[in-house]
Amino acid sequence: MNDIQRNLSTDEQLTLLKRGVVDLVSEPDLKERLTRGTPLRVKLGADPTRPDLHLGHAVILRKMRQFQDLGHKVIMLIGDFTATIGDPTGKSKTRPPLTLEEARANAESYLQQCRLVLRQESEVLEVRYNSEWLEKMGYKDIIQLASRYTVARIMERDDFRKRFEGGVPISVHELLYPLTQGYDSVALEADVELGGTDQLFNNLVGRALQRDYGQEPQIVMTLPLLVGLDGTEKMSKSLDNYIGITDAPHLMFAALMKVPDALMPNYFTLLTDLPEGEVQALLAGHPAAAHEALARTVVSWLHPDADLDSALERYRAVAKGGIPENIPSVTVPAGEVNADGQVSVARLVALAGLEPSNGAARKLIQNRGLRLNGEVYGDPQGLWTLGADGVVLQKGKDKFMRAVLEG
Amino acid sequence: MNDIQRNLSTDEQLTLLKRGVVDLVSEPDLKERLTRGTPLRVKLGADPTRPDLHLGHAVILRKMRQFQDLGHKVIMLIGDFTATIGDPTGKSKTRPPLTLEEARANAESYLQQCRLVLRQESEVLEVRYNSEWLEKMGYKDIIQLASRYTVARIMERDDFRKRFEGGVPISVHELLYPLTQGYDSVALEADVELGGTDQLFNNLVGRALQRDYGQEPQIVMTLPLLVGLDGTEKMSKSLDNYIGITDAPHLMFAALMKVPDALMPNYFTLLTDLPEGEVQALLAGHPAAAHEALARTVVSWLHPDADLDSALERYRAVAKGGIPENIPSVTVPAGEVNADGQVSVARLVALAGLEPSNGAARKLIQNRGLRLNGEVYGDPQGLWTLGADGVVLQKGKDKFMRAVLEG
Repeated sequence: MNDIQRNLSTDEQLTLLKRGVVDLVSEPDLKERLTRGTPLRVKLGADPTRPDLHLGHAVILRKMRQFQDLGHKVIMLIGDFTATIGDPTGKSKTRPPLTLEEARANAESYLQQCRLVLRQESEVLEVRYNSEWLEKMGYKDIIQLASRYTVARIMERDDFRKRFEGGVPISVHELLYPLTQGYDSVALEADVELGGTDQLFNNLVGRALQRDYGQEPQIVMTLPLLVGLDGTEKMSKSLDNYIGITDAPHLMFAALMKVPDALMPNYFTLLTDLPEGEVQALLAGHPAAAHEALARTVVSWLHPDADLDSALERYRAVAKGGIPENIPSVTVPAGEVNADGQVSVARLVALAGLEPSNGAARKLIQNRGLRLNGEVYGDPQGLWTLGADGVVLQKGKDKFMRAVLEG
Repeated sequence: MNDIQRNLSTDEQLTLLKRGVVDLVSEPDLKERLTRGTPLRVKLGADPTRPDLHLGHAVILRKMRQFQDLGHKVIMLIGDFTATIGDPTGKSKTRPPLTLEEARANAESYLQQCRLVLRQESEVLEVRYNSEWLEKMGYKDIIQLASRYTVARIMERDDFRKRFEGGVPISVHELLYPLTQGYDSVALEADVELGGTDQLFNNLVGRALQRDYGQEPQIVMTLPLLVGLDGTEKMSKSLDNYIGITDAPHLMFAALMKVPDALMPNYFTLLTDLPEGEVQALLAGHPAAAHEALARTVVSWLHPDADLDSALERYRAVAKGGIPENIPSVTVPAGEVNADGQVSVARLVALAGLEPSNGAARKLIQNRGLRLNGEVYGDPQGLWTLGADGVVLQKGKDKFMRAVLEG
């Protein structure tokens, strides 16, 4: 970890911090506050319901890290109390209410992943939970908070306006969430709040509320939502177009080699510190070289100890249809073998963890998604004799597993 | 006080209860619930900020009393906790936040006045304060409550819709008030809620919330807003078109004798139990006789011991410009008299409490609003020699005060 740089001028800081930023409300405010020379309090809110982070999240965490590198203090605000409410209407299955313990456990996993990107020194990292103030809030406090904002201003939020005009129900409590989130900034006395562009409205509510509560209004900075590997939708786990930030180095490397060309400028800007000139030169050259530079930079950032050369070799071997070296293996218990010394292939797939069940494995085989030792294998009911070297199972292009007999 | 009547049939009860009612949501619900034969819980909410009741309030209290007379239980719900919030934006001077003690003191005065109309037996009267549940409500409870109702439905309320469309700001907390008021019905397990026609929307929110909280939805019953003595605006203290329910019998009598003819049917329906046939006969006869019947009925209801004949005589005397008997008197301290044995007339008016200051008294005299011993007196700077009988001051048509010298 590099030392914290405290000797940059305001303009140098501003240039670094503005890279990749979409909204900045406002630049003069940020400049003025940086000029003071005292560390800023930089807030990022997190909903501890989906603990798996991908490169889309990493974009914002990188920006947080830049603030840290300049000596500012990052505040990770965990919405633990909000998570215990979930969807109070009970209609959404994706937002079940959690217990405070579940929310805290998710938060722990989330923070663990954030540590791949963020500095750990308490001087530049503070973790807070909104239960700290929300648990104490009573009816009167909420009425007072809600009185600070008009319905018309809340309804300016894009999704609210569209739903209201389109007759799609909005429950009254949904209007309270942006206010609560804004109040978090008041409680934390945040100087800056970061978020995706989809958080612009909510974070501006925080800015307005701080002014109303007699604080200096926070600076709101948004970053683009990273487009996923499909090239069209924002990166998200549910769309399966994502690269997880804890993905193994060789998988992350291979995935980055396949980023659609149109997204390359964005990925360079948002996921690396490579200077603009160097990025332009790479983009002007051979696409494979640009991809390799991206993959090397991002993988070595998140996995500083990764062997980039062998990740590249492995990627090339697989791309040519070959079988990479050093693939993980699973041991097949002797009891799985029949009198003729054979094992069900579907069973092997399930044992290797490539599919969750024998049934799913049979479907995979039927759909011609399985290779055995590099050859497509098409018989869902087929049997296989495991030799001394076992067999290499391959699901899709890049999931390999060797199965070897026990003993 | 009559005995509680428990032997009326459902239809007989329904006929009594429907008299004067505007909205009834719904009649089949009410009929069904009356049929069960168990006493109903009949809620009336009160805001303990303006403790002076007038005949407009008495209309609803009468209906509550009818329920009591049929053996049902009336629940007076005092919004003490809501009163401690007042107008949280601080913009309205008419709704300053009260302390809980102030709210309770106002409520005491309010309940004192209600006792003129309602039965006191605990079997048919329950007094509750919403601090009982609101004080315990936390952030989570409020989110859960707010999640039960959509913004669109709240915005259907007439005044909200008009303000929203007209760009007049509505603060978010204002949307929470109807929900809170509705939740009161849940907390009280109300069977029926009464209110003026202006409360229809709020009380229907209570009906919807009860259903949502797994209770039987309350029956909502509204009564008209009584038009005041000016014949156009609803009766209200601030418009000075009201008759206070604690007004002295002779004043109440005189005021009722002056009810505009067009309002007479309404006043009979809403403020008396006189049978429809009798009312029609009175209205078809001489207006003075109808007014007298109204005045006698209403005054004897609120002042069972009043001498109605002398109230009528007094009214007639004053109407002819005469001076009534038995008027209150004020003693003028000897120090107010000058060397010539005279007192300032303006000073007398102020001492008698007919105007709040000497200046206001001079203005009254200038406007020819004062009579002395029955004669208009027009000199704002004038002096008067008080004889043995003192002098009778008369402001307007019906405010009399005798001033007599000390000793």
